[in-house]
Amino acid sequence: MKIYDRPGFPNPARIRIVLAEKGLDSQIEFVPIDLIGAEHKSHAFLQKNPSGVLPVLELDDGTFISESTAITEYLDHLDGHPTLTGTTPKQRGLIHMMQRRAEAELIDPVGEYFHHATPGLGAKLQAFKSLDWSGRADWGRRQGERARAGMIYFNGVLERQPYVAGDAFSMPDITVFAGLMFAEAAGLTIPDNSAALAAWRTRVADLPSVKNRSGQAFLADDARRLGL
Amino acid sequence: MKIYDRPGFPNPARIRIVLAEKGLDSQIEFVPIDLIGAEHKSHAFLQKNPSGVLPVLELDDGTFISESTAITEYLDHLDGHPTLTGTTPKQRGLIHMMQRRAEAELIDPVGEYFHHATPGLGAKLQAFKSLDWSGRADWGRRQGERARAGMIYFNGVLERQPYVAGDAFSMPDITVFAGLMFAEAAGLTIPDNSAALAAWRTRVADLPSVKNRSGQAFLADDARRLGL
Repeated sequence: MKIYDRPGFPNPARIRIVLAEKGLDSQIEFVPIDLIGAEHKSHAFLQKNPSGVLPVLELDDGTFISESTAITEYLDHLDGHPTLTGTTPKQRGLIHMMQRRAEAELIDPVGEYFHHATPGLGAKLQAFKSLDWSGRADWGRRQGERARAGMIYFNGVLERQPYVAGDAFSMPDITVFAGLMFAEAAGLTIPDNSAALAAWRTRVADLPSVKNRSGQAFLADDARRLGL
Repeated sequence: MKIYDRPGFPNPARIRIVLAEKGLDSQIEFVPIDLIGAEHKSHAFLQKNPSGVLPVLELDDGTFISESTAITEYLDHLDGHPTLTGTTPKQRGLIHMMQRRAEAELIDPVGEYFHHATPGLGAKLQAFKSLDWSGRADWGRRQGERARAGMIYFNGVLERQPYVAGDAFSMPDITVFAGLMFAEAAGLTIPDNSAALAAWRTRVADLPSVKNRSGQAFLADDARRLGL
């Protein structure tokens, strides 16, 4: 199996954590994609994923699977230990509910904020963004507010239970963690009085599967290339 | 089990089709939510789903599961015939990939278009939308363009295979179908030269689980109440 990705970015980090949780790192060949050089918008890459985003999994039979939730479903069903997507119907329902909330209420609005209310990935990639409509920065800032509201929501969840979907670490924990990582990179901080979220984040950051997988070194390198 | 929903709206339609596919209609109590009266934004409803959207499933133990993908995962795992979310890891991966694309590239942008570039659900509900940023209509129209691009993408998929995720009807077929239903209600038509998408739509509309579940009568009633 191959993963096309770029360390240091939030969705690639999600799948690297999944691979580590499942003990699959050694079976994967990582193929680096030059995000800063817009390689993910090239014709060759769009053949792999028409949505033009990372990461993409390529199976040994040549099938491409994109979208982090889908890649996680694939990898989690190769074997059952540990499970990141649940086993009972109720677990699966609650985990997918939280996964969608983690995307819709946190990681997606952070992405809009990053691309529309900050310099994003710089001028070259902005050509692929929404330059031909007004109100971009306003929209971006609103998404920043939505992301903060999402953090407050997840803080409330984590006041009641140790992990995002219940008593065990599962798929949406990874998504919320990557969302906070992305938020920090975009300049969005966790709101005050979010002690439960902050404590959970410290605990998750210390998991063996998560530690040293945020790709900070790569991010710093990209920031230098962008002149940020 | 209870489903809180409103017939005629796209996400409620998705779950009604799932219930029919699984033969579970008779085990469900449907609780109507007054979308036009903003009941889904009331304190009581937000206790059930803090995201304030329909549908919501309530289990007999009082657990609430929201988000259509999560409800589908729950219902599909109660038993295995027919499967809407796949059985092998590869099927599950491809189905969740297409599910996410159906949302991100079609049903979500149609929703933005509907709420920001058309009168949406009228003045009362607009109070819950993004009135305090400029460029709303521009943004809405751009989302209309994105939704059309999504239709062209799915047309290409359906030129190569009979259903959205491969040879069998599965979860993302329901999502694309609901997306097209929503697009039509919002005034977004299928682009010309989308013969494969149009033919697939006709086939899906004729499935026993789909027939008569689009809730047109309820929609017409809502339109009258809104004075549209």
